[in-house]
Amino acid sequence: MQQKSVHLETIVEGMKSIQTAISTALEDLDGRGRFNSDHWVRPSGGGGCSKIMLEGDLIAKGGVNFSHVHGPMPERIANGLGLTPGVEFHATGVSIVLHAKNPFVPIIHMNVRYFQTSGGKHWFGGGIDATPIYIQKGEAVSFHQLLKSVCDRFPSHSYLKYKTWADRYFYLKHREETRGIGGIFFDHLAADDEPTKQMNWEFVQEVAAAFVPAYESLAQPNRLKAYGERELEWQALRRSRYVEFNLLWDKGTRFGLDSDGRTESILMSMPPEAKWVYNHNPLPDSPEADTLLHLKPTDWLGLETKHGLEKAYPTRN
Amino acid sequence: MQQKSVHLETIVEGMKSIQTAISTALEDLDGRGRFNSDHWVRPSGGGGCSKIMLEGDLIAKGGVNFSHVHGPMPERIANGLGLTPGVEFHATGVSIVLHAKNPFVPIIHMNVRYFQTSGGKHWFGGGIDATPIYIQKGEAVSFHQLLKSVCDRFPSHSYLKYKTWADRYFYLKHREETRGIGGIFFDHLAADDEPTKQMNWEFVQEVAAAFVPAYESLAQPNRLKAYGERELEWQALRRSRYVEFNLLWDKGTRFGLDSDGRTESILMSMPPEAKWVYNHNPLPDSPEADTLLHLKPTDWLGLETKHGLEKAYPTRN
Repeated sequence: MQQKSVHLETIVEGMKSIQTAISTALEDLDGRGRFNSDHWVRPSGGGGCSKIMLEGDLIAKGGVNFSHVHGPMPERIANGLGLTPGVEFHATGVSIVLHAKNPFVPIIHMNVRYFQTSGGKHWFGGGIDATPIYIQKGEAVSFHQLLKSVCDRFPSHSYLKYKTWADRYFYLKHREETRGIGGIFFDHLAADDEPTKQMNWEFVQEVAAAFVPAYESLAQPNRLKAYGERELEWQALRRSRYVEFNLLWDKGTRFGLDSDGRTESILMSMPPEAKWVYNHNPLPDSPEADTLLHLKPTDWLGLETKHGLEKAYPTRN
Repeated sequence: MQQKSVHLETIVEGMKSIQTAISTALEDLDGRGRFNSDHWVRPSGGGGCSKIMLEGDLIAKGGVNFSHVHGPMPERIANGLGLTPGVEFHATGVSIVLHAKNPFVPIIHMNVRYFQTSGGKHWFGGGIDATPIYIQKGEAVSFHQLLKSVCDRFPSHSYLKYKTWADRYFYLKHREETRGIGGIFFDHLAADDEPTKQMNWEFVQEVAAAFVPAYESLAQPNRLKAYGERELEWQALRRSRYVEFNLLWDKGTRFGLDSDGRTESILMSMPPEAKWVYNHNPLPDSPEADTLLHLKPTDWLGLETKHGLEKAYPTRN
């Protein structure tokens, strides 16, 4: 780890590199789909570049978005963060959501972000989580092992802490279900002194570097599996829950809209299609019913009991 | 108008009657579809009855919901209303959303509600608004004329006030578009003294009585119109905007979820199906493009200019 100082410009360029590296690797993985870039300017400062893939071989709809927005902080955001409205802020990051064509391939999401204000606050945040349409235990375990291996390389970062944070964050209170199998989520990672900032920036970059391998391990064994109307119907139902989470509860979506981000870029996270079926209940003992049973915070790696940690079961209130 | 006192029980029974009258009339109008009733109990007090119609001849998915919830006020709601958490409250009302099969039939929404607290606050609220997939000016004018005729029967209720309120309320800030052609919206109608309470309760009942005629005038001329893939695609896109409004901005949806209402009843407002197409732009000079041009607060009856009122054009901030 080099002990050079990490400037805002370094982080912004680093975020752009993350976007380029991941979008290139995803094109290779997809084989057919290509990302189209849309550059946008935010009237009150900054802008971004959205890379969108539509109707690929693997990816039905996916976005890899970079943004760097700055200017005086909008009031609603300042209030939410306990900061003074009007203070100058910079927010930069990469957000990814991939909706696969095949219902056996999970939806995946990654975000890495950096935030600073002229009042001297700086922090990193981010995470990776997966939302299978059909949950398979072995797959969930491998996914979490990979995320754990990233955290384990850093003495000051804890997989268990970030995993339970994801369980709490990616939770649909109104459905009493998790969004999927979770992953890791972290926020407000300090960047106040140079060594800490350097180390946390390394960590965020390592999380981003784990994204494509994580998605490959979820996508490759499943992308050619046969499916029919039943699986597509279930996919459309699960996608409606994804919509509900993002529009009702996701703070990133809310931040984007409240900070006058580009709506089409923020809502690239929406699935190509979703269905709402009133009072839907899957057949007993079906793979669909089994998936619902797994939509709760789950100790995939058997670590929480071992460490005597209390599990994070969020309740509705 | 009888000068008898209006008790909570009278209003609750009145709301149930509204549900029954409207659901019966809608079954007649549909001709094939029938409402199924789901009764639900709210653990902390009260409950409701959802009447849901699926795959009717006219209505693809529709809900006519009655609820009466009470108990100590949940904190998030108390904070939003500037009331003390824990104060006893009663909320009762009827909510309706109808998604038609034919893309030429608008989505329609009605809500009438009454709210009281043990601290001595009582008020009525409600409204009717329509969201055509294809906006036709003449239809919008007739719809607004009908709503105006209801308001005009009451010296203390103003169509113009409630119409501009609807324009501000049913607004997708992030899209800079109205949800549809608007309608009327009102809230916090006083119920503090008996004559005012009596009059406002009469008004709310008259609004409810206007619902079926209003929907008939939108549905009957359009329900048999021919349509194809193009119109269904546009319907699915407009339905996704409906989802965005209800989950991102609608206070009624938020109130329902925050007060532990039944999720399936609250989210009956979701369309059967929705599509998100990245950066969709309709063909120039098409009926779809024409509809987008009308998605702004519009002086359908030519009254706002005449009365010298400032138009209510909400902006994003």
